[in-house]
Amino acid sequence: MDFIAATYRLTCSAADVERLSHDIALEQTVEVPDALIACSDLREAVVGRVGSISAVRSPSGPGSSEQFDVRIDYPADLATGLGALINLIYGNISLKQRIRLRDLQLPDSVLRTFRGPNLGIEGLRQTLGVYGRPLLATALKPRGSTPEHLANRANQFAAGGGDLVKDDHNLIDASFEAFRERVSLCQQATIAGSQESGRPCLYFPNLAGPTGELERRAELLVRLGVRGVLIAPLIVGLDHVRHLADRFPLAFMAHPTFAGAYFHDATHGVEPGLLLGTLFRLAGCDATIYPNLGGRFSFTADDCRQIDRLARAPLGNLRSAWPSPAGGMSYDNLEQMAKDCGEDSIFLIGGALLGDSADLKSSTARFRDQIAALFPASKSIAPSFNEVVSACELPAPRLTQRLLEHLRFVNSFHWDGREPVAYKASDELPFRNVSRTELIGTAGEQTAFDLRYFEIGTGGHSSLEKHAHTHVVIGVRGAGKLISGENGIDIKPFDVAYVPPLQVHQLTNESSEPFGFFCIVNHDRDRPQKP
Amino acid sequence: MDFIAATYRLTCSAADVERLSHDIALEQTVEVPDALIACSDLREAVVGRVGSISAVRSPSGPGSSEQFDVRIDYPADLATGLGALINLIYGNISLKQRIRLRDLQLPDSVLRTFRGPNLGIEGLRQTLGVYGRPLLATALKPRGSTPEHLANRANQFAAGGGDLVKDDHNLIDASFEAFRERVSLCQQATIAGSQESGRPCLYFPNLAGPTGELERRAELLVRLGVRGVLIAPLIVGLDHVRHLADRFPLAFMAHPTFAGAYFHDATHGVEPGLLLGTLFRLAGCDATIYPNLGGRFSFTADDCRQIDRLARAPLGNLRSAWPSPAGGMSYDNLEQMAKDCGEDSIFLIGGALLGDSADLKSSTARFRDQIAALFPASKSIAPSFNEVVSACELPAPRLTQRLLEHLRFVNSFHWDGREPVAYKASDELPFRNVSRTELIGTAGEQTAFDLRYFEIGTGGHSSLEKHAHTHVVIGVRGAGKLISGENGIDIKPFDVAYVPPLQVHQLTNESSEPFGFFCIVNHDRDRPQKP
Repeated sequence: MDFIAATYRLTCSAADVERLSHDIALEQTVEVPDALIACSDLREAVVGRVGSISAVRSPSGPGSSEQFDVRIDYPADLATGLGALINLIYGNISLKQRIRLRDLQLPDSVLRTFRGPNLGIEGLRQTLGVYGRPLLATALKPRGSTPEHLANRANQFAAGGGDLVKDDHNLIDASFEAFRERVSLCQQATIAGSQESGRPCLYFPNLAGPTGELERRAELLVRLGVRGVLIAPLIVGLDHVRHLADRFPLAFMAHPTFAGAYFHDATHGVEPGLLLGTLFRLAGCDATIYPNLGGRFSFTADDCRQIDRLARAPLGNLRSAWPSPAGGMSYDNLEQMAKDCGEDSIFLIGGALLGDSADLKSSTARFRDQIAALFPASKSIAPSFNEVVSACELPAPRLTQRLLEHLRFVNSFHWDGREPVAYKASDELPFRNVSRTELIGTAGEQTAFDLRYFEIGTGGHSSLEKHAHTHVVIGVRGAGKLISGENGIDIKPFDVAYVPPLQVHQLTNESSEPFGFFCIVNHDRDRPQKP
Repeated sequence: MDFIAATYRLTCSAADVERLSHDIALEQTVEVPDALIACSDLREAVVGRVGSISAVRSPSGPGSSEQFDVRIDYPADLATGLGALINLIYGNISLKQRIRLRDLQLPDSVLRTFRGPNLGIEGLRQTLGVYGRPLLATALKPRGSTPEHLANRANQFAAGGGDLVKDDHNLIDASFEAFRERVSLCQQATIAGSQESGRPCLYFPNLAGPTGELERRAELLVRLGVRGVLIAPLIVGLDHVRHLADRFPLAFMAHPTFAGAYFHDATHGVEPGLLLGTLFRLAGCDATIYPNLGGRFSFTADDCRQIDRLARAPLGNLRSAWPSPAGGMSYDNLEQMAKDCGEDSIFLIGGALLGDSADLKSSTARFRDQIAALFPASKSIAPSFNEVVSACELPAPRLTQRLLEHLRFVNSFHWDGREPVAYKASDELPFRNVSRTELIGTAGEQTAFDLRYFEIGTGGHSSLEKHAHTHVVIGVRGAGKLISGENGIDIKPFDVAYVPPLQVHQLTNESSEPFGFFCIVNHDRDRPQKP
């Protein structure tokens, strides 16, 4: 049987420590007194066990209390997910006094259930083509600025050779439309700045807003070519971040807002490195921002180094994450920061960059050159991409359709009020002779799915592709073939086919008549990839 | 211009209080120093203002520091949602020392954007038909027990006349199937117990598990006739709870697990009543559990009374919520609890009920009779319901289908591997002569939608109904009519129709041939209601 080993520091008298340790083991698993556990099988399979108790050398704190490190071993299969894990290691006992979670050891059986960061340190380096030095990042602020002003800042930072520009965590757009307008502008401005500098710079918008709209916002970002986001796990929920990271091929940069209550008292809460490092990494965070020593907040040097360490430490097969110190950085202490944090970190610099000169582009270049100079072995290599151009997803030119409650079928598979989109034949496109009619889902209908009609002409085919989202195909006109994984499926009218997640597939028409089919897909979906 | 007034208690020296107050106002809104705010319009529209500073009488705490209550007025339109509101009032400053959120005043412009509890005190009373006394609740535990054992406990509690039985918060099923099996058993057992006692008892399962599955689990519960759930807002995320409460017509009972870090130090964090009362209510919680005075946790009498007060206090047009003290209750102190908490509270009693007698049914009856005796004016009135029996949603007898990648169309609108479900004609049913074939979505396909084929025979019709989810209809066989709001839409093969949210609708067949159509709906959807 596997165990999760959680070590707590208890501040209590020596006479109480055994009883309190036993209480924790019960509270966090069965939440009943020992006497009410009827059968010993249950005790064996479910109840936590006190693994060890060791006294900590006399604390500097007040009073007669002492401190003990107590390891509790919890049966691993109680952690049925990230929410359940958090509940197990610091749920109800968060409501008790003087118990601090100090260490967490997870067995492989638990670690295997998490994907962790999508990109991590290595993946983000590949995306940026930057190796051997810390990344230079900044934040778009202040809230209340116009989208144009923020976009201009992003542009100047990218043009100056910055690596990563994120939204401030309190840039939270009230509507999807405001979000779309602002992030589109900032993304375009960042790309334009990158083109000017000749070096990639990434824009990470703040993925925040109403819960029911987060996936729609993420989907938009993927479509815009955005490669990562800022997210606030304590506000969104850690398992919610994990869910988003599982669904969207984005880097997630975690912001610690609302997390401070877990840290401020050394005798209570959770070690900063465990929450912002280990647990955020389980949630799929590729980078974790923390308030740097010397900034406006109260983290100690030990806190900072613990976060650095746990963000990058081995953790099953999970990718390592970027520690991202923020605040308290100036041009003059970059050298000290480089020594303290090492090359695998993101220097998130706001005020000091702006304060350095009225010209963000030149101050960015100055900071970036200094970082590169501190890491003489650093290098840049052009990044590569793996996306496929898909007839299913290629935006239609001027697709502006009105929501209609009745789409009357006219003839030859046309519908009143809906125009088919066909693309000019080109050897450069991986699909051929395909037209698409968007019927439902793109005109403001409140559906979790889109309904499209596709028609493939004689000798035509869709792109050979795969994606996490599924397809449902209903044949309606003529006959064609669906190649799906190992199978070749003949599709005739009213046949229904299902393409599972990540199955490589393609639709072809080898007949002499048009092959038409409905295709239903989730409204929020990932972008197609090459096989 | 409207303001959100947040009052913080600062523990600091008198010399620092003005500067610290001003820092909070900047940190929580623009996150830049005053000098970097270029234009005065921005300062006007976005930056928080120090509204008042008043010294608190000398604290009992140690050292030379003093305490001050500082009110910051934030522009109301910064709170674009619940996540943004939390970020605004206690986001980054949670990472600073000795700042405690003490009071929160929200203007109507903000309160109007929240629906709050679905049922609240009055609605849950109507559902139960119980007036004028506290509710008696218990928890199913311990984790590790078989579903049959838990169901038996629920049955005995209901048979003894208990009002509400909830899952323990650490009952978190690893799979949807395990969840379905367990909650179905407990729900049936609770209903059977209610029938025995002749009084309604509600079962509230723990809505926990992987984020991507929560809505599917909630949807199942609605289908099972469950009226409420237990939920852990600090684990799931407060705005996520709000999202679920907006979508599902359930009562939400909040559990405080993982919330303790905000309370344990009186100079930091958030007042318990603000988090567990006010903010949970904004999140749509109908009831809020707190660790009762005298139990295993460390809340003071003031903490408990503050939660009671803020759960029930006027808050715009939001329904009031039930405070639910848990722990520290015995038969002997019911009278004191009744005095302390009053009639609008839920007594959540676990160990004391079991400890009272080996027979849960009789000890439940004893506790319930005692509560009723303490509130002589209390009464019971039978509840009413408004759901419609819909051919679209009526569960199929033994619907166990295998996931198939190809559903071959056979003839006369049948598919290999899929059986139509038809219901016996009955005057009691609001639909007639309808059969349904579930094609995609109920066999484990990973889709956000279900694809079904319906056929309505000559003279038949579906239920006249409405629901929040939308319908997309594609005619495929014969011809029929869709009545949708004010419109009568003729549906012929390949016509596409969209039924918007909450539009009253019905499909009919007045022709002499079968009328067949595909219907696509969101996989997660609400139950149909009478017009």
